[in-house]
Amino acid sequence: MNFKEEYGKRVNEIEEILAGYLPPKEGYQKTIMEAMEYSLTAGGKRIRPMLMLEAFRLFGGTGTAIRPFLAAIEMIHTYSLVHDDLPAMDNDDYRRGRKTTHVVYGEDIGILAGDALLNYAFETACTAFDTEPENSLLIGRALGILARKSGIYGMIGGQVVDVSESGHQISGEMLDFIYRLKTGALIEASLMTGAVLAGASEEETACMERIAGRVGLAFQIQDDILDVTGSEDVLGKPVHSDEKNDKTTYVSWKGLEESGKEVSRLTDEAVAELKGLGRESGYLEALFRWLVYREK
Amino acid sequence: MNFKEEYGKRVNEIEEILAGYLPPKEGYQKTIMEAMEYSLTAGGKRIRPMLMLEAFRLFGGTGTAIRPFLAAIEMIHTYSLVHDDLPAMDNDDYRRGRKTTHVVYGEDIGILAGDALLNYAFETACTAFDTEPENSLLIGRALGILARKSGIYGMIGGQVVDVSESGHQISGEMLDFIYRLKTGALIEASLMTGAVLAGASEEETACMERIAGRVGLAFQIQDDILDVTGSEDVLGKPVHSDEKNDKTTYVSWKGLEESGKEVSRLTDEAVAELKGLGRESGYLEALFRWLVYREK
Repeated sequence: MNFKEEYGKRVNEIEEILAGYLPPKEGYQKTIMEAMEYSLTAGGKRIRPMLMLEAFRLFGGTGTAIRPFLAAIEMIHTYSLVHDDLPAMDNDDYRRGRKTTHVVYGEDIGILAGDALLNYAFETACTAFDTEPENSLLIGRALGILARKSGIYGMIGGQVVDVSESGHQISGEMLDFIYRLKTGALIEASLMTGAVLAGASEEETACMERIAGRVGLAFQIQDDILDVTGSEDVLGKPVHSDEKNDKTTYVSWKGLEESGKEVSRLTDEAVAELKGLGRESGYLEALFRWLVYREK
Repeated sequence: MNFKEEYGKRVNEIEEILAGYLPPKEGYQKTIMEAMEYSLTAGGKRIRPMLMLEAFRLFGGTGTAIRPFLAAIEMIHTYSLVHDDLPAMDNDDYRRGRKTTHVVYGEDIGILAGDALLNYAFETACTAFDTEPENSLLIGRALGILARKSGIYGMIGGQVVDVSESGHQISGEMLDFIYRLKTGALIEASLMTGAVLAGASEEETACMERIAGRVGLAFQIQDDILDVTGSEDVLGKPVHSDEKNDKTTYVSWKGLEESGKEVSRLTDEAVAELKGLGRESGYLEALFRWLVYREK
């Protein structure tokens, strides 16, 4: 398998689906559609919809109910970045080399664009009830997972603790909590909703949750490692920033070597559990390793 | 019928349901649960859940799937107020005599509390799939309406135009658009989702949408009238503020007399259409008139 080629194919597929769910820019309120499109087309890696689609295929999913969910999870991820960048939060003027949404459209529209993306994610996912009414129960279950993993027991929960505890040292347990919720929860939502929509059993869905939890955490620990070992040229951002900000990270908590071992252990466990399902999962395994052992 | 007594009973019923859906204040992220509860218990009139519950009963609804939806629409209404009050929006330090959420918890938690309430609204509504899986199709349809009416083609859409066009005169058509979306859409969502969850037909649901649209618009026009004719003591806020801010209102657009006639016409039409359904709707009619012909 040529990973890069396979990955590229899937990104194109997802970009096309996502573009189909962008609201047309019309009406008195078209500014908000423009701001939504601006933030959604900033060129992310589309990891979450990709994981969702792979989980769907892993369990032999067919039909189109998955499509609006692929767009929905990217909208949720994007809204969290838009609000994260606001002056009262991280106060970032640039993201991926482009001006952030509130810088372009103003802070009020920045707030509303985030709200609109979160709301539109659910609005979009709900269109699955119209296209596949016979699968309403599965769609409802997937929607419930998406909502829970995005909320106070998922992404927002992690975000709140991160915001509240920034600027001072925290315990390892709390760091773990933040990583599992802030980053891990949406990865869990991706693999779980893909599985549920394909008709996976509760046991299989729980298995996908465990796998995703490990991959999400490994991904985040690798982030801490790269801040110490990475090169500024490759990363495209300053290194040693965590140390300078006196930030608690996996590296400051467990040391560089132990953190590296943790990444390997988590990834190996995730891959082993995935293989244990006895399904065709070559690309998904490669995707996990690519996500975790990245250089930037 | 003693309206005040009947109204009081229903408020108590809704308060109890709402309290049951507040997330427990626990875990590392408990600040966000506290901020959500603070804003949700600020003592609103609970108009939206009340309208939803009445529509549900009007169409003979039974079962419990309605309960999380009653909480959900109040959470959506509340999140919109929390974000509306933010410094980058209306910059209000007080609402209903209490400090606004961002003043108490900080601007970052204010933003996240709004996000959390919006997300938790959908998370809460989705619990209906667990309690009444056999009604998944109806629940899915109600969820779709709730999402659409709260989003860019509903409340947020109206909010965006209101924010973008503030500080200068606008056309009557645009004013109408703002009122119908910013205020009307959630009223529509209330009557429509209540009807749908009770098993009302598409035609009946469309009828509820028209009724709600008229009541919502009449409610908002009355707001403009009270700003001119009301007394500061009764309203609890300064009068003639629209004129001072050179704001386009129904009164500045059509004049006081014509605006009053519009309110009567809309309300009479809504009540007539409601009666036309041939169902027991005495309290709902009284509620419409109370909402519209209020003195504050």
